Amino acid sequence: MRDAYLIGAGQSDYGSFPGESYRSLFRTAFENACDSVPDGIETEDVDEAVVGTLGVGGRQLGLPGPAVTEHVGLHGIPVTRVENACAASGYSVRQGVQAIRSGMADVVLASGVEIMTDVSGDAVRYWLGVSGETEWERLSGTTFAGVYAQMASRHMQEYGTTREQLSHVAVKNHENGAKNPHAQLGFECSLEDAMDAPTVADPLNLYHCCPTTDGAAAVLLASEDVVENYTDDPIRVAGVGAGSDRVGLFQRDTYTAVPASQYAADRAYEMAGYGPDDLDFAEVHDCFAIAELMAYSDLGLCDPEEAGEFVASGKTKRDGEMPVNTSGGLKSKGHPIGATGAGQVVEAFKQLSGQAGERQLEDPQVGLTHNVGGSGGAAVVHVFERGMGGDAA
Amino acid sequence: MRDAYLIGAGQSDYGSFPGESYRSLFRTAFENACDSVPDGIETEDVDEAVVGTLGVGGRQLGLPGPAVTEHVGLHGIPVTRVENACAASGYSVRQGVQAIRSGMADVVLASGVEIMTDVSGDAVRYWLGVSGETEWERLSGTTFAGVYAQMASRHMQEYGTTREQLSHVAVKNHENGAKNPHAQLGFECSLEDAMDAPTVADPLNLYHCCPTTDGAAAVLLASEDVVENYTDDPIRVAGVGAGSDRVGLFQRDTYTAVPASQYAADRAYEMAGYGPDDLDFAEVHDCFAIAELMAYSDLGLCDPEEAGEFVASGKTKRDGEMPVNTSGGLKSKGHPIGATGAGQVVEAFKQLSGQAGERQLEDPQVGLTHNVGGSGGAAVVHVFERGMGGDAA
Repeated sequence: MRDAYLIGAGQSDYGSFPGESYRSLFRTAFENACDSVPDGIETEDVDEAVVGTLGVGGRQLGLPGPAVTEHVGLHGIPVTRVENACAASGYSVRQGVQAIRSGMADVVLASGVEIMTDVSGDAVRYWLGVSGETEWERLSGTTFAGVYAQMASRHMQEYGTTREQLSHVAVKNHENGAKNPHAQLGFECSLEDAMDAPTVADPLNLYHCCPTTDGAAAVLLASEDVVENYTDDPIRVAGVGAGSDRVGLFQRDTYTAVPASQYAADRAYEMAGYGPDDLDFAEVHDCFAIAELMAYSDLGLCDPEEAGEFVASGKTKRDGEMPVNTSGGLKSKGHPIGATGAGQVVEAFKQLSGQAGERQLEDPQVGLTHNVGGSGGAAVVHVFERGMGGDAA
Repeated sequence: MRDAYLIGAGQSDYGSFPGESYRSLFRTAFENACDSVPDGIETEDVDEAVVGTLGVGGRQLGLPGPAVTEHVGLHGIPVTRVENACAASGYSVRQGVQAIRSGMADVVLASGVEIMTDVSGDAVRYWLGVSGETEWERLSGTTFAGVYAQMASRHMQEYGTTREQLSHVAVKNHENGAKNPHAQLGFECSLEDAMDAPTVADPLNLYHCCPTTDGAAAVLLASEDVVENYTDDPIRVAGVGAGSDRVGLFQRDTYTAVPASQYAADRAYEMAGYGPDDLDFAEVHDCFAIAELMAYSDLGLCDPEEAGEFVASGKTKRDGEMPVNTSGGLKSKGHPIGATGAGQVVEAFKQLSGQAGERQLEDPQVGLTHNVGGSGGAAVVHVFERGMGGDAA
């Protein structure tokens, strides 16, 4: 099958934008993605689009795909809306890769968009609630923070993980986000700030939780047959993996891992022929601090009992042995549900093409993105490598 | 790229089922699909699933995919929810084909499900409204019946189409649906019944409009590498095409055609190497009677000015030159939004495998399915042919 290549990626600012619509944010992301293609691209070159969105607030619950692609002049092409909760646009990218490998498209826009801050906190809780397990978790009053708090409690009991270690996730990700001009919470925080914040769902406090966010992200993929029209510095989609699980945490066998992430990572590594040791960086789904620690072990970066120390020791800082969430992650960069997965790929593109500005890593060759839907009902992992393939590891 | 084959398909009954859930209907469709595979299939053989649903009523708005696939024992595999309004599961099937052609899956479940009758009429209008153009059409009070009524009025003015011709769509489709044990409105109606029904949105009356429906449908696809494990009588997915357009009718240049259907059909015919003359039957998206007439011309079965006479003359009856909607169509079989597209493929499977019972056509070799989202913001067309390919037309 034909390989797919990442030729461009861009995002809107992440934040709260009362003056923007989902269409205007999408347009910004699309234009930034087009501008990032080294040798340029025309709108007419795009022959398929995938749009990830949950539709928080209900403004265009059906057909949001063409509603945004028409707005940027992508007329008549196949457009599909994909939704897997917070992993919506990670799955958009996966579907874009399948479209190219299938031979049915040569250039695909894989994207996501969400507006969350123009509805009340109660409405946000409703919309996130119906992306978790609706019948038992939401109707019993459990929030996403509550679900992840259960995971954190169990992780503490089982592995001795501490609040201080959880707080190091926030410190690291804010340090990175402070260097990302698109970040919603682009400021640094001290360990004391992160330790002393108000409790949200014990043991998780405000600094252990990502914000609600407006934003959009767009990724441009091209087939091996046309990639040279767009760039002399291709980035290959080396591996793609996805996995599913029971939607409700209470239905699963473990509270200290996300099995869907493990399935996704195993499949992505197998397809890529790479393992965790080959990675130069990873963007992982840190909707809550505990989620980043579980991602470390689910992706094979360390064992679960080492996860707390893995971050506290600085190994996942930008100058550590395995930089994680150089973008600032969901915690600092922000988490516009449907845009998050594609937004992670934007960071992978920037790092691998040397455009990450103040947070640029030194010549990275292989990077991973990891996007989780709900509390782990779905997960998707991509492995990207510089070059046409086979020589980067 | 590898070809994809239709190896099985099944559906639940369509209707109003207060005792069923979206999970139980999905299970019925999945089990019926598995039972239809000639040489049998195990749940473990399925290595990817796609689920189409709009989520009417909001019961599991996020992650409905794994919520239903886990329920039938499909554990851990990649599962993606696709939504393109009433074309959700037509796009599920298309994504299933891409998954197989991409080399990333060998056996894919492409499916759809919807529960619509447990919420009020006002709620249904809301949920359908947000699948049309939300900001202007819905907020100005326009319903889907209203949008299609505008199309019908213009079609009458431009081409002399009559109410009697529109009513023939209902008569024909009810005649077929009366022979489909899964149909929601499985009774015949006379031309007088169809002419004299109460007005819904002038010029469309009750018999020119499909019902609201609960139901699920499931399609099993296999790659050319494994198809012989499942059947000696394969059905090839010869062509797949999709197209998009402005979501609001008022934003388009024509009221008497659905351009997205034309784009989709052109692409499907081109990929298949077949044209309208090669078809032995078609399942088209007759959410309203006028939609079936527009489908005739958008798919190239006749010119737009001939569409009314095309049905009135009996050419699209089961014994006509081009049978359309042998299943009963959306009008008589029912229209469970997210399940409709996959349900059309169920009929194609039954006709091409000789299992259509009393409504069986005589040895059909090539059939088409046509599924529209909204009033034409998205459309998807599939062409299926008996055999391994290249020798059926």
